[in-house]
Amino acid sequence: MADKLTPREKGFSEWFVDLVLKAKLADYSDVKGCMVIRPNGYALWENIQRVMDGMFKETGHRNAYFPLLIPESFLKKEAEHVEGFAPQLAVVTHAGGKQLEEPYVIRPTSETIINSMFARWIHSYRDLPLLINQWCNVMRWEMRTRLFLRTTEFLWQEGHTCHETEEQAEEETRRMLDVYRRFAEEYMAMPVMAGQKSESEKFAGALRTYSIEAMMQDKKALQAGTSHNLGQNFAKAFNTAFQGRDGKQHHVWQTSWGSSTRLIGGLVMTHSDDAGLVCPPRLAPVQVVIIPIGKTDEERAPAVQKAHALAKDLRARGHAVVVDDDDSKSPGFKYNEWELTGACVRVELGPKDLAKDQCVMVRRDDRKKEFIPLPQALDRAKAMLDQMQADLFAKAKKFRDDHTFEVNSYQELTAKRDDGFLLAHWCGDPRCETKVKEDTNMTTRNRPFDVKQEPGKCVVEGCGKDSPGRIIFSLAY
Amino acid sequence: MADKLTPREKGFSEWFVDLVLKAKLADYSDVKGCMVIRPNGYALWENIQRVMDGMFKETGHRNAYFPLLIPESFLKKEAEHVEGFAPQLAVVTHAGGKQLEEPYVIRPTSETIINSMFARWIHSYRDLPLLINQWCNVMRWEMRTRLFLRTTEFLWQEGHTCHETEEQAEEETRRMLDVYRRFAEEYMAMPVMAGQKSESEKFAGALRTYSIEAMMQDKKALQAGTSHNLGQNFAKAFNTAFQGRDGKQHHVWQTSWGSSTRLIGGLVMTHSDDAGLVCPPRLAPVQVVIIPIGKTDEERAPAVQKAHALAKDLRARGHAVVVDDDDSKSPGFKYNEWELTGACVRVELGPKDLAKDQCVMVRRDDRKKEFIPLPQALDRAKAMLDQMQADLFAKAKKFRDDHTFEVNSYQELTAKRDDGFLLAHWCGDPRCETKVKEDTNMTTRNRPFDVKQEPGKCVVEGCGKDSPGRIIFSLAY
Repeated sequence: MADKLTPREKGFSEWFVDLVLKAKLADYSDVKGCMVIRPNGYALWENIQRVMDGMFKETGHRNAYFPLLIPESFLKKEAEHVEGFAPQLAVVTHAGGKQLEEPYVIRPTSETIINSMFARWIHSYRDLPLLINQWCNVMRWEMRTRLFLRTTEFLWQEGHTCHETEEQAEEETRRMLDVYRRFAEEYMAMPVMAGQKSESEKFAGALRTYSIEAMMQDKKALQAGTSHNLGQNFAKAFNTAFQGRDGKQHHVWQTSWGSSTRLIGGLVMTHSDDAGLVCPPRLAPVQVVIIPIGKTDEERAPAVQKAHALAKDLRARGHAVVVDDDDSKSPGFKYNEWELTGACVRVELGPKDLAKDQCVMVRRDDRKKEFIPLPQALDRAKAMLDQMQADLFAKAKKFRDDHTFEVNSYQELTAKRDDGFLLAHWCGDPRCETKVKEDTNMTTRNRPFDVKQEPGKCVVEGCGKDSPGRIIFSLAY
Repeated sequence: MADKLTPREKGFSEWFVDLVLKAKLADYSDVKGCMVIRPNGYALWENIQRVMDGMFKETGHRNAYFPLLIPESFLKKEAEHVEGFAPQLAVVTHAGGKQLEEPYVIRPTSETIINSMFARWIHSYRDLPLLINQWCNVMRWEMRTRLFLRTTEFLWQEGHTCHETEEQAEEETRRMLDVYRRFAEEYMAMPVMAGQKSESEKFAGALRTYSIEAMMQDKKALQAGTSHNLGQNFAKAFNTAFQGRDGKQHHVWQTSWGSSTRLIGGLVMTHSDDAGLVCPPRLAPVQVVIIPIGKTDEERAPAVQKAHALAKDLRARGHAVVVDDDDSKSPGFKYNEWELTGACVRVELGPKDLAKDQCVMVRRDDRKKEFIPLPQALDRAKAMLDQMQADLFAKAKKFRDDHTFEVNSYQELTAKRDDGFLLAHWCGDPRCETKVKEDTNMTTRNRPFDVKQEPGKCVVEGCGKDSPGRIIFSLAY
């Protein structure tokens, strides 16, 4: 590991790319804007999937799989939707050696193809609610891409639900936003602001979009999940209708909600440091790495044996453990490597430690060293992992709170552009949003639920119209 | 359920399609040759994935994700490979509103794009073996499609590994074939013949392909998994090379192996009956369904309560349980519905049963009814599921063995075309294979490992040349 990461202070973007490549989370591919997710990165995605999938099932959703390709005409059935996605589509024009009569697009999202099926499956109110989720790949042709954060192809989950009433759809939209919030905060240790997106930032085809917004260490926002109340827009376009309790035909009320491999980018940029990945223990592919030490094979043998015995006991308690007994690498080299790749707790076991019936434990985030009597190792490892999870969240929350400001003038808004989340009054007019974007590159993130919404006056220069409450302005990924 | 399935005797294909559609395993879509996997079918896929993924990890493999799109030029680097797949490709020619300089194909399999990355990642023998697996969707433009068995898009896993030596690659190829065999037999309860494919049936670009072949209830073969020794073909095309222990550069030796959602078709066609899906308990999304019975709400209440208590206890023992307490449907209607969708054991709980502290248990496959004292219900459910798993395998194996014949003349071969697996001597000449196919529609399946390979004479009319041993001829999906 002579090859260090660019320090965050010198260049946050370079640091991020260095970390992703050197920790072998992902790599560039020869396909424009597409990345390869390497095993270290994919293991994170598997853990994210496992936890989230459990949360979706607990809230009554079932998984299904719909086609990758969507007839071009389907996209055109919902006017706002096609307008929003048309510039980003990849199009299949030939297949099986022939030109296709109608081109297919690779799904950028699946509302249209899924509605074509929902329309067949739903007949009566007894078929509702219909609660479906899909784990899949999607494609949006992007001009500027970044590993994990914005790639042409990405992996995600998309929930699609149908309800009898508008209220039920709104409840579901908010319920799933809250699932995302809980996942972000309780598992990723990443505090988020949940709230409603502006009209211009909402999903193409939705009535309303809600999002969770996290703050990265460079104080930029990362949208980490969105939940859409689709109203009856797609239902009307595809005639997804049911016979109601009143005996009449009604269009269903729908929601959709998604989160993607970009979460991995958010996890990296929230917690990691100049030595590499810092991973919240609840999602870490390696929670404990045990490194047996010894100058000779003879010296190492009892440490290796003890390491494997300890690993077995830790695994029996549900921890993800690796024993690194590769004798071609020095302990120092290994320490660096496991710090780079984000093992949460490092256990060092040398002959002197064994003689004292103890081991050394080092937490990845604060790198504090503790000597632990071996009989206490299991309990201490668990306590350390729990504490690390809590500390990562507290630290990230303090950072976010320390960089969130109420601003009350346009001068203040532009001056604090690089400082974090700026809570400012905005009248709701997209022209004011555009002006801020042109002047500062900041966008509106959302109107946060947790900030008391009191009326005021729009801070944008030359406006001053009534504002229903504050919205977050921020630079964003 | 007035709507019955076509009986198998009247039309096996119609029965299969009826079952898949009515049990809501899958549905047709508006995209040519693509199906939608509905929640009942996807739950089976999730169980298959969970078990197989565990087996891959136990054998040292890690998951990763590579791009969906492959530059057309990559495919052309391996001559046999492009020749084999060219007729089946879907091609992206436009993206982001522009014509692409070089078209991309949607992966039909990923050897080429993966080798483009392996070539970057592998430098030394210390980087080997490299053992990767990918769960993803692939696309092969098919002329005639069938739900689950042959669809334009399908879900699968593809393993890709690199080794220092030819022997290690061959070992891995056989090891993973054996993983497939174990999965098919121990989880799907589907006996298979493992063996080597003929030259004309091998994977385009491989040295050798091995397969597992199962027999469906209509006596046709289903190829249920393949494992390829790729030799150095792709390594040479992509210059995937390493510095060996001798200090010199060598091309890696590779394998790939895959299995897909077609397994679900195999599972259905191996065990199911005219009433619907019969599912091996180890993969069943619903192992036990509990149906509380009573004519009035009052009569039903204690049964409902007991049903949920029993469900809780069964779940604590690791069983997948549903309580069907929907009071808008009659018990008879529910029995049919759960037989159709393949719940393994049905528990009926009525007021008379409760009075006697007992319940009724009915096994899905033999539909035998037992009265079980409630205190024994947990143990009996477990025993019943275990016995059903074993019985399904034994029954399928007997069927397969009863329909496997040694044939020693061409007349016998053609006469027994519809009778199952025909073990016959074949010289290895593809012209003889073609003649059999033209005359009978049968193909060679594999040279099974479990059949003693003794030399003989090719049975094909007009040949009679030396044969190294018997191969399976059969009609196939």
